[in-house]
Amino acid sequence: MKKTIIGVMGPALDSTPDDLENAYQLGELIAQKGWVLLTGGYNQGVMEAASQGARQAQGLTVGILPGNDKTGLSEAVDIAIITQMGSARNNINVLSSDVVVACGLGLGTVSEIALALKSHKPVILLNHSPLSFEFFQSLGVSQLFAVSTPQEVIDLIPNLL
Amino acid sequence: MKKTIIGVMGPALDSTPDDLENAYQLGELIAQKGWVLLTGGYNQGVMEAASQGARQAQGLTVGILPGNDKTGLSEAVDIAIITQMGSARNNINVLSSDVVVACGLGLGTVSEIALALKSHKPVILLNHSPLSFEFFQSLGVSQLFAVSTPQEVIDLIPNLL
Amino acid sequence: MKKTIIGVMGPALDSTPDDLENAYQLGELIAQKGWVLLTGGYNQGVMEAASQGARQAQGLTVGILPGNDKTGLSEAVDIAIITQMGSARNNINVLSSDVVVACGLGLGTVSEIALALKSHKPVILLNHSPLSFEFFQSLGVSQLFAVSTPQEVIDLIPNLL
Amino acid sequence: MKKTIIGVMGPALDSTPDDLENAYQLGELIAQKGWVLLTGGYNQGVMEAASQGARQAQGLTVGILPGNDKTGLSEAVDIAIITQMGSARNNINVLSSDVVVACGLGLGTVSEIALALKSHKPVILLNHSPLSFEFFQSLGVSQLFAVSTPQEVIDLIPNLL
Repeated sequence: MKKTIIGVMGPALDSTPDDLENAYQLGELIAQKGWVLLTGGYNQGVMEAASQGARQAQGLTVGILPGNDKTGLSEAVDIAIITQMGSARNNINVLSSDVVVACGLGLGTVSEIALALKSHKPVILLNHSPLSFEFFQSLGVSQLFAVSTPQEVIDLIPNLL
Repeated sequence: MKKTIIGVMGPALDSTPDDLENAYQLGELIAQKGWVLLTGGYNQGVMEAASQGARQAQGLTVGILPGNDKTGLSEAVDIAIITQMGSARNNINVLSSDVVVACGLGLGTVSEIALALKSHKPVILLNHSPLSFEFFQSLGVSQLFAVSTPQEVIDLIPNLL
Repeated sequence: MKKTIIGVMGPALDSTPDDLENAYQLGELIAQKGWVLLTGGYNQGVMEAASQGARQAQGLTVGILPGNDKTGLSEAVDIAIITQMGSARNNINVLSSDVVVACGLGLGTVSEIALALKSHKPVILLNHSPLSFEFFQSLGVSQLFAVSTPQEVIDLIPNLL
Repeated sequence: MKKTIIGVMGPALDSTPDDLENAYQLGELIAQKGWVLLTGGYNQGVMEAASQGARQAQGLTVGILPGNDKTGLSEAVDIAIITQMGSARNNINVLSSDVVVACGLGLGTVSEIALALKSHKPVILLNHSPLSFEFFQSLGVSQLFAVSTPQEVIDLIPNLL
């Protein structure tokens, strides 16, 4: 039967130390709950940190890669999905996740938040700026949440499944 | 030889009257310049208005449809590209445009602006709120412009090609 | 109003001289009929020959590129659609064509013929081997035709639109 | 670390009883080897049979769905990847598989065999007609194999990884 998948999205480059620490903890907590972690698959930034956290807690990890082979794949990803679609794979990231968590904010992350909300997926912004929350709120969406810690993300998820 | 393509992005539903009027004028002005208009192809909202404006001025119009056939295609689209990719086609919209103009702001439009900036395409926000401009500016991008009228869009484009 | 689009598919590399001659003539004849030519967009093989033929006859040409920019685009393509999808763009090639013509046979072409038939698009095999025709026939399809010359392709198309 | 993924491709509809029996056995044997099974995800035909076989043997199963939600998902799929890409997801099926096994032959399967060979993935035809093998052989490919039983598939795979 389909396992619950939690997507953790965030920048490959220019992640802040806080984002990386949050992503690692998120990965650990998601794995401890028995959920599957889904990321963009790269061995960089938020994707890498979340996958390593889940790995540390013996979780199952899925990575949705943009390229046409496994170049750049995180060592902590178990299931590599190779899309050859570039940034269009962002839509697959969010559609395949039961809940989307944005941990940090790059341009790819913005596209993922927008696509997730468009598909009526619940989106949790972790430790975002007031500007970011206000912007997405202004788009008239209903499934958008803002929290400050990884534990709050985990506590919120069961209400959204 | 490749023609210059100007993409006009905006909501299918919930467009404001101002957005529709701007989109129609943009379509007309783009066509008068001899540029090709590219939209998401639907017979609704900003896409329909821009395509009708370009048609009125005998321009060439391209529509990148999300579905698997021509259902919902604007009557004013000449070249229908059928992608069967849903919202992932937004990436094609922006990659195929030499300049991207956001006329109005839905969730799909947000994803298009973000994907365009990620691919280093110039993006012009037409008549956007200060919040929207401030949000995208905060992402550290260099090719983002904000103007108030369709004519300003047209005057800006030659500097971006 | 949507223009009629004829897709000409065939190998980028390893095209035979016959395939290239046929593709060039097809491009010319398609343009003379006022139809739009659609190819995979590259400046190689059947795609290049068909686009050059259409260009020679002042036709309109569309190229659906697999990469993330216009690298490799044929000089004879007017409208470049940039998909960043690799071989998955083959599905767009066939869905966007009202009739699909296979001129030569590479692995990409095989995928295009199969995807076209799956989507109930009419497919014309131009100058194919008996093995190729027998193979596709064996799949229980109804919209598959085999002819020997570009002129026969052109004569057949109006019955398929 | 990335797990080995074996893709089993075949028709959703019109599968023969032999194909279904083979697919079920393949799923079981793949799971017993500790490999991950990847299919197109549907609860029909070869996809369903292979997933059920793997489930029976406590294997891990991945399904790459063409739609925009989990409609039609096999009960025996653990990890559902939702692509919203229609038949273009066939490219993801083969790129994500370390070895591709064609069990039965529909139009989608033909596209998958062709795309896999184009990407230099090893392809095993299980119980195919001589016509099918001869056709794909004629395309000048090097990584194509034909066998008669699921056990032969399993015995062959280690040489291809």
